Formats: sequence, structure tokens, C-alpha cells
Amino acid sequence: MSTDLLTRRYATIGRHSPLFYDEPVHLVSASGVWLTAADGRRYLDAYNNVPHVGHTHPRVVAAMAEQAATLNVHTRYLNEKVLDYAEALIARFEPELDRVLFTNSGSEANELAFRIAGQHTGARGILVTDFSYHGNTSLLAGATTGLQTHEGLAEHVRAFHVPDLDSDRREPDVVRDEALAAVDTAIAELLQSGHGVAGVIIESIFSTEGMPRVPAGFVEGLAARVRAAGGLVVGDEVQAGLGRTGRTFWGYQRYDLVPDLVTLGKPLGNGHPLAAVVTGHDLLEEFGSRNEYFNTFAGNPVSSAVGLEVLRIIDDEGLWERSRRLGDEIRERLGELVAADPRLGPVKGDGLFFGFGVFEDAEQTRPDAATTKRLVEAVKARGVLLSRIGPTGSVLKIRPPLAIQDAELPVLLDAIRGAVGEVLA
Amino acid sequence: MSTDLLTRRYATIGRHSPLFYDEPVHLVSASGVWLTAADGRRYLDAYNNVPHVGHTHPRVVAAMAEQAATLNVHTRYLNEKVLDYAEALIARFEPELDRVLFTNSGSEANELAFRIAGQHTGARGILVTDFSYHGNTSLLAGATTGLQTHEGLAEHVRAFHVPDLDSDRREPDVVRDEALAAVDTAIAELLQSGHGVAGVIIESIFSTEGMPRVPAGFVEGLAARVRAAGGLVVGDEVQAGLGRTGRTFWGYQRYDLVPDLVTLGKPLGNGHPLAAVVTGHDLLEEFGSRNEYFNTFAGNPVSSAVGLEVLRIIDDEGLWERSRRLGDEIRERLGELVAADPRLGPVKGDGLFFGFGVFEDAEQTRPDAATTKRLVEAVKARGVLLSRIGPTGSVLKIRPPLAIQDAELPVLLDAIRGAVGEVLA
Repeated sequence: MSTDLLTRRYATIGRHSPLFYDEPVHLVSASGVWLTAADGRRYLDAYNNVPHVGHTHPRVVAAMAEQAATLNVHTRYLNEKVLDYAEALIARFEPELDRVLFTNSGSEANELAFRIAGQHTGARGILVTDFSYHGNTSLLAGATTGLQTHEGLAEHVRAFHVPDLDSDRREPDVVRDEALAAVDTAIAELLQSGHGVAGVIIESIFSTEGMPRVPAGFVEGLAARVRAAGGLVVGDEVQAGLGRTGRTFWGYQRYDLVPDLVTLGKPLGNGHPLAAVVTGHDLLEEFGSRNEYFNTFAGNPVSSAVGLEVLRIIDDEGLWERSRRLGDEIRERLGELVAADPRLGPVKGDGLFFGFGVFEDAEQTRPDAATTKRLVEAVKARGVLLSRIGPTGSVLKIRPPLAIQDAELPVLLDAIRGAVGEVLA
Repeated sequence: MSTDLLTRRYATIGRHSPLFYDEPVHLVSASGVWLTAADGRRYLDAYNNVPHVGHTHPRVVAAMAEQAATLNVHTRYLNEKVLDYAEALIARFEPELDRVLFTNSGSEANELAFRIAGQHTGARGILVTDFSYHGNTSLLAGATTGLQTHEGLAEHVRAFHVPDLDSDRREPDVVRDEALAAVDTAIAELLQSGHGVAGVIIESIFSTEGMPRVPAGFVEGLAARVRAAGGLVVGDEVQAGLGRTGRTFWGYQRYDLVPDLVTLGKPLGNGHPLAAVVTGHDLLEEFGSRNEYFNTFAGNPVSSAVGLEVLRIIDDEGLWERSRRLGDEIRERLGELVAADPRLGPVKGDGLFFGFGVFEDAEQTRPDAATTKRLVEAVKARGVLLSRIGPTGSVLKIRPPLAIQDAELPVLLDAIRGAVGEVLA
């Protein structure tokens, strides 16, 4: 069956469309955090951040179906639903972030953010972290450092390193200042080469980078330097937003920082293609007056109804609070687990986005990607789906939908414990 | 009510998000080709090409709701729905176009087509028609000639003119050869400047350009010249595809041409954000092997279920055939109408995408945008929504959903006749 599907897949969408796991999972249905495969096996989903309020949430499905049966048109006509949603979304942000441009994907949102930033600053230069991914368009491919693109880094892009106190054990202030000095150098290069600085894009939990423990003041210092050079700060909340990181509703709020442009994606529509750029009146006015910008699908009433229902469910089911509470509990349990084996690194992350490093040595100087991969497969064999991240692929990536229940924690933790016991025995 | 909505709109998505008509229409529901406004007024929709099989088609809504209640995940797991859809879609194309990459919008599709073309050719140069629009990303904004972008034309983009036998009344071969000579010049400039030729993008009915009557052999000559210079041909079927232009299922099939990359958008999901790039095995293999390309939302089972149902409805309801048949009939009736007033130009377009030019003079040398605008408003006052296009905005743009019924033609035609009688009296 899976072999047949693979054959059909290769003959249509090709061999390179990525698939998870040594033996890909053939899914047929899902509910909450549970996925059901074609062979009847059920998996606890500890990976997917798109179905934020839970797979196939009945309220999301109902809101989508009801609106789709009533009206679905673009925003060149007046319609109330897009305004209901825009108001509800903006209300979650600081007062200066009071305007929204809807898009259909995080890639479209980051593209648009850099069109706005480029036009505002008159500069082309982009600063990105040195192991990151913000989308799949030409511009974003040229600013991709965390996965393979044939384009490579564009000439107007400079990558800087996000310091990690878990691997760099010097004094935090020393680590921070050294990292900020590298940012200064990158900015100087962009200015000297004539590209100028359009902006920096940061994903506040630095997930692709492996969730480094960033020294206090680094993010604020980075933003201050970019702004001093005339650039804007783009906060990519595709991963960290909407309560995911627990302590704050948006990931950037964990720092003393309000970005000029916030980009939203993945969880916003619980799987429906919905994304957005949130910014302030002045930037929107400037961009809008200079460009006939339109997006056919974005802001349609069905997407808006879905987005609105997701926000309401987060409130009604207390998912933001749950992310903080369950995240803390899981990290405590994982802390006990890693304490028992010196090859397992400190627990990383925040809220319901966490993991821990895996090393070859007790001194934790040699990351162990092969063992991490074996752990992922061993956890899967125990009925839980997760993945791995970081520059060396040696940090377990655990990121269940926020719909995970207290009673489901033991399933997740037992699978990880069992896999660790087996693989690192 | 509308005033209140406008205030809320300006305070959230801003003043520059485009709106149709002097008095914007506030819509609350729709079915088939009928839109219902908040004041209870019903309009025949003769503009929207996105709700291809009809607004709120019950089968599309049911397919969406059923799949959304069952499973909605990305393509890193195996799922049958995306393959069912990919196979059904590819089956509509020539044998050499046997692979598909799904995206969420036409912009994403055209972006991806040019990433593929740029990598394949090792060139950056892009050829576009001189009054066109293919999307809203940075790269596509730099190749936009048909509406205002602050970026302006990028240095590696050259625009060429699409000849129109309706306005250029010399011998067709002379008009064609002159236009192709201009293409030769544009290609020579791109080669000389070192950009090379990545490709040309054409929308086969040239809708933004005002549906010119293109001399025989121009499109084929253009494609041959681009290919001789090492470039690829991108066929943008966002407007002309899926039976819209009647005589052929895809617009490019009206020429002796198979593009290297076909981009699909708007009507594909009947309003659901769904788009695609269709290409051949070799280009997909080359791109896939060089890039870790992934698109989170694209190819999800809900989008796939919707796209599949749209294809089935087109067949079951005979919409492609209807597009040809009703299109021919409407053009015949409009031909009678324009024959009665020398200021009205020849009827343009194909299938259910048509219009006619409006001029100040009987010799049809001075396009009359102001009168065209008054016509659009007068048609709206008679309960039919349409628009205008072309470099001077003086061609009526009539493009109803393919769901329009025989019995609804008189409503459309009477409104146009009445408006012409009033405005051009």
C-alpha cells in the first residue's frame, strides 16, 4: 500500500518532495493530537505546529464550511468577516502594530515584509541568522542559511550567528558582546558595499537554529544596531507565535522588543492557507500609496472565518495558558531524564516547543546527529511522532499541537524515555 | 452601514486596499453567478473568475468540509488525496507536462516557475509583455508592467509589446514581424548585458493587455526566439486556464505551443487558496535535487479535495463546453450591439472572457476610459457586476463564472445594452 503510494507520488509530485522517517507514515485521519495511519496504527502528534488547536477541530471545520456555503470573495468588495478577523488579530498586538495585510503563506508574508522594508529604507541589505529558513521564494531563498538552496546567499544578504550559552560556556556578557560585534561587522559590510540595511529577520525562539539559550540583551542589541543603521526589524512569528512559546502570546514579547513588521503563518488557520503581516499605520500607508498591492485569495471571508475561530478557540480552551503550564511540566520531566545521562544536553525551548541536545561525549562537545535520528525513529516506533533540528540535526524537536491534554503527557514522555533507554543503552 | 464598514476597513487593512466601484458593494452571500448585497440587492456576477464553478458550489463546500473533518496535514506524510488530485490535474496536460508542484497562490506559482527557470538556465533575464501582472512578490513586482509598483522594472527584465490587429490595421504579417523584431532586440539586450535569458512569461489571452487580437505566428515566434536564446517558456494560465477561454482547456493550446512550465491559480480551488506549477520530469528532478524545497500548506488534503472536486464539476456539468457555447453566443450578441455604434470597438476575447473597446471617435483611434468607467457603473446600476481592462482602461472586462446558465444571458446582455444606450446616447 505505502509502496504503491510512493510510486504514485514519485510519478506526480516527484522524488524530492521531502518525506519524514525511514518508513514514511501513510495517514488517513486525525483528531486532537492523534493521527491514524492506514494500517490502523495511532500516533500521538508531537511535531505539527500547524494544527494549533488540534487536528480537524470541529469548530474550525464548522466555521469554514458555514462561511464557504455563504460567501467567498476577494477584498475588492466590502465584507464584514475580514474586518472582524482583522480587528481580533490586531487586538493581540501592541498599540503601534495596528494594521494587517493578509497573505496565504508565511513565505508570502516574509516576502511582503521585505518589500515594505526595502521600499521604506531604500536599501536592499538583509540580515539573517546563520542557520535559518523564512520561506521559499527567490528573495527568501537568497536569504536561506538553514537548508540547501541552489541560489546560495545573495550578495546583499549577511548572516550572523545566534549565540548559545548552552554550547558557549563563557560569561554571558562576553558571549553576547562578541556576537553583537559580529553583527556590527555584517552591518558595516552591507553599508560599505552600498546595499544598505533594509532590515533583519528573526524568529524569536530560533527554532531552525536549534533553540539556542540566547544571552540577555542580544536580541535587543541586535535590533538597536539594525535600527541605528536605518533598517527595520521583522519578527517572524510563524513558529513562535499564537501562544506557542507559553510565557508570552507572541515570541518576540519575551524580549524588550516590538518589531516594525510581524509575520504570521503556519498555525494561524489551523491548516487553512492563511498568513499575515502585522505592522503600523505609517508603514502600511507608505507602501499602499506607492504600490497597487493586491492578493486575490488573502483576506477572503472563509480564511477570515477560520482565523477568527482559531483565535476564539485559543481563548475558550485556555490554550495559551496550557502551553505555558504543560510546557513547564514537560521540561521538568525531561530535565530529570537528561540529568540521568551526561550525553543528553540541557532541555531547550519554551512553552510547547522544546527539545534537548544529544552528544557523543559526556562533555557535550560533539553533537550526535546519528543517535538523534535513531531516537526519532525509536520514539516513532513507540507511537509518537517528533523530529530533530539545529545546525547538526542533533536536537530533538518536540512541538505538539497546543490541544495536547494533561492526560496525554505520559504517552509522550514514556515514548521518549523508552527510546532513550533503548538507543543510548 | 457601508460607511461604518469603510471606517473599520481603513482602521485595519488600510485605505489603499483596492475597492471596486464609486460606491463599494457590501456583499453578504452568493450562489451560482448571483451575489447578494447587505441592502438585499442581487447582482449577476460577470466579473469573478475565481468562483469558477459558481459561488458557494455545494459540492465544493462538501468536499472541503468532509476532508477538513477527516485530515489536514502537509505532504511530509503520505496521503492519498494529494496524489488523486495530482494525477487528475496532470491528466489534463500534454504527456510531457507530467509533474506538478503545488502552491497556495498564483504569485507563489510564478515565483517558483522563475526559480526553476533561473536555476535551469543559469540566467536571470526575464521577458514580460509591456502591460501585464503576474504576482506580488519582489521578483514579480520587478517584472510588473501593468500596474504601479515602487520597484519599477528590474534591470534584468525587458518588456515587449503584444501586437493587436484591432488597433494596428496593417498587414498581419507586417505587424507580427515588427513585434518579433522588438523581441529580438530585447533578447539581444539581455544577452549583451550579461543577464542572459531565463525565460518569458505569457498569459495566453493577454487579459491585462486588453485581450489584443494577436497575429498568427506571434506567440510561436516569441517562444522559438526565447528558446533559441536558452530561455524557458512559462505559460501563466491563472486567467485563461481551466476551460475559461472555451475553445481549448488551457489557453496556451490555442497556439502551437507547449510551455516548459505552466502556472495555475485563481479558479483552481474555486476560492480556496490553491495554485500549482505543472512541468516535466526533468525540470522537476533538476530543481528538486538542488534545493530542499517545501511548501507547508500546499498539497494538503483539504486543498487537494477541493481542487479535485472542481475538476470533476467542470466535467459533470459540462462547463468547458458551456464556456465555448455561451461565449460564442454572447460574442455574437455583443457583435450586433457594437455594430450599431462606431465608437464601440470589435468584440474581444474567447470563451467566457470577453469585452469590447470604447472610443471617443468613430475611427476608433482615441480610447475613451472615462466613458468605459461610466459604462461599468451604469451596468452595475442595472444589477450586473463587471469591470474594465487594457493599458488605457477602455475595454469592458466581462468574465462571469463558468456556472452562468443560458437563462442568465439575457440579464447580462440587457444590462450592457441598457448601459450603452444610456451612457453613449
